[in-house]
Amino acid sequence: MQDKLIETLLNRKTIRKYTDKQIDDEVLNTILEAGIRASNCGNMQVYSIVITRDEQRKKDLAKFHFGQPMVTQAPVVMTICADVNRFGKWCNQRKADAESYSNFLWFNIATVDATIATQAMCSAAEGLGLGICYLGTVMYFAKEIAEFLHLPKGVVPITTITIGYPAENPSLTERLALNAVVHNEVYKDYSEEDIEQIYGELEQLPQSKRYVEENKQENLAQVFTNCRYKKEDSLLFGGNYLEFIKEQGFMD
Amino acid sequence: MQDKLIETLLNRKTIRKYTDKQIDDEVLNTILEAGIRASNCGNMQVYSIVITRDEQRKKDLAKFHFGQPMVTQAPVVMTICADVNRFGKWCNQRKADAESYSNFLWFNIATVDATIATQAMCSAAEGLGLGICYLGTVMYFAKEIAEFLHLPKGVVPITTITIGYPAENPSLTERLALNAVVHNEVYKDYSEEDIEQIYGELEQLPQSKRYVEENKQENLAQVFTNCRYKKEDSLLFGGNYLEFIKEQGFMD
Repeated sequence: MQDKLIETLLNRKTIRKYTDKQIDDEVLNTILEAGIRASNCGNMQVYSIVITRDEQRKKDLAKFHFGQPMVTQAPVVMTICADVNRFGKWCNQRKADAESYSNFLWFNIATVDATIATQAMCSAAEGLGLGICYLGTVMYFAKEIAEFLHLPKGVVPITTITIGYPAENPSLTERLALNAVVHNEVYKDYSEEDIEQIYGELEQLPQSKRYVEENKQENLAQVFTNCRYKKEDSLLFGGNYLEFIKEQGFMD
Repeated sequence: MQDKLIETLLNRKTIRKYTDKQIDDEVLNTILEAGIRASNCGNMQVYSIVITRDEQRKKDLAKFHFGQPMVTQAPVVMTICADVNRFGKWCNQRKADAESYSNFLWFNIATVDATIATQAMCSAAEGLGLGICYLGTVMYFAKEIAEFLHLPKGVVPITTITIGYPAENPSLTERLALNAVVHNEVYKDYSEEDIEQIYGELEQLPQSKRYVEENKQENLAQVFTNCRYKKEDSLLFGGNYLEFIKEQGFMD
């Protein structure tokens, strides 16, 4: 029986195209329950999940995700947030000083916990025959998304997922070999030869060669640095994200 | 068949006591494969996994986790790290400018990706009959742990898990009700009454009352703020973590 779980985890693919089929409340609740059942720091649950299902609101939200079609097409979009607001309010009502939970340590603890819950939801969704897609773009426009979702101080969007029934069946994406990302006992830093070996295979894939050609670059690494994840974007969005985290009270 | 997966996710418990049984390489590889198969930003895999299995090194590592017995008792301990070092070296060898991947945005992207991989490994482990425990303490002594694991610049520990065969079967931990953490369309901020209702149930549990008594506090919230997660610790460890992230080049 367990093999099905492992099979689901090992053969999963990100799904970006969905059928019109809606997600039943019962199915959605099972997914959410799987999320909150996952581990979290001190059982404090310093995260919140905001669901977007309204058609018009999905269209509006999509603007903050570079108009990626998954946001409007998926029946359910979830924005998972670091949240010390709820816990802090409880502490205030109990004369317990929760001021320090709005600091950088807790931002990181909450980021990890929000992501743990998210990934547990993704595995549940995939186990139920649904497909998911993570949208890292949530960090780029965190402030705008926070306004759109009415997030108060102490709440910051960490990640977004779209969920729906698959209307595509892509092939498994290439990953680096296990020994390229796993280290035994100590981190074994990479020699020039290691790097050639690790990334050489990836570079030789027909798809990789196509990316290089389409983007008119010299090699695959430059497709990342010059086209997909450009320096000016990293600096702009990174600066904005840090500024917003400060505004939300997490760098005090 | 799928029900087994959902059952695993919904009934999982954190396991802190392990039998002497070792984890076969095949089982460990399946867990690791499940981790790297999970979603990640741009398929850049900006994370690394460092495995500690050596008995003496587990004892040494445990010191940086407040001596928690899981670290020495578990057959496998994994420290999962944000890692832009490997990707950056590849870019450098390809005359691609990866300098901006060492900024605050990428620290957060890598934190989320490292955690996604970790949680996928946890689900795989639990599906295979193993138990896991997350150790948030990794952020408290990130610098010391990084030295211990020989992490170079560009690599920061994000989370640690212990994995082993369960030698205990605890009951399910209480969680807040779904509607306490899930918001529909917009974040519905909590009124005083909401907070009373959400945390009231938790406070009434016999275990909660025992915590309050044992710690000689007025209420459960104060157990968190005065005993478990104290202000001075948050400020000290939060400051240290930020300082270390800067040293590793992520706030440039």
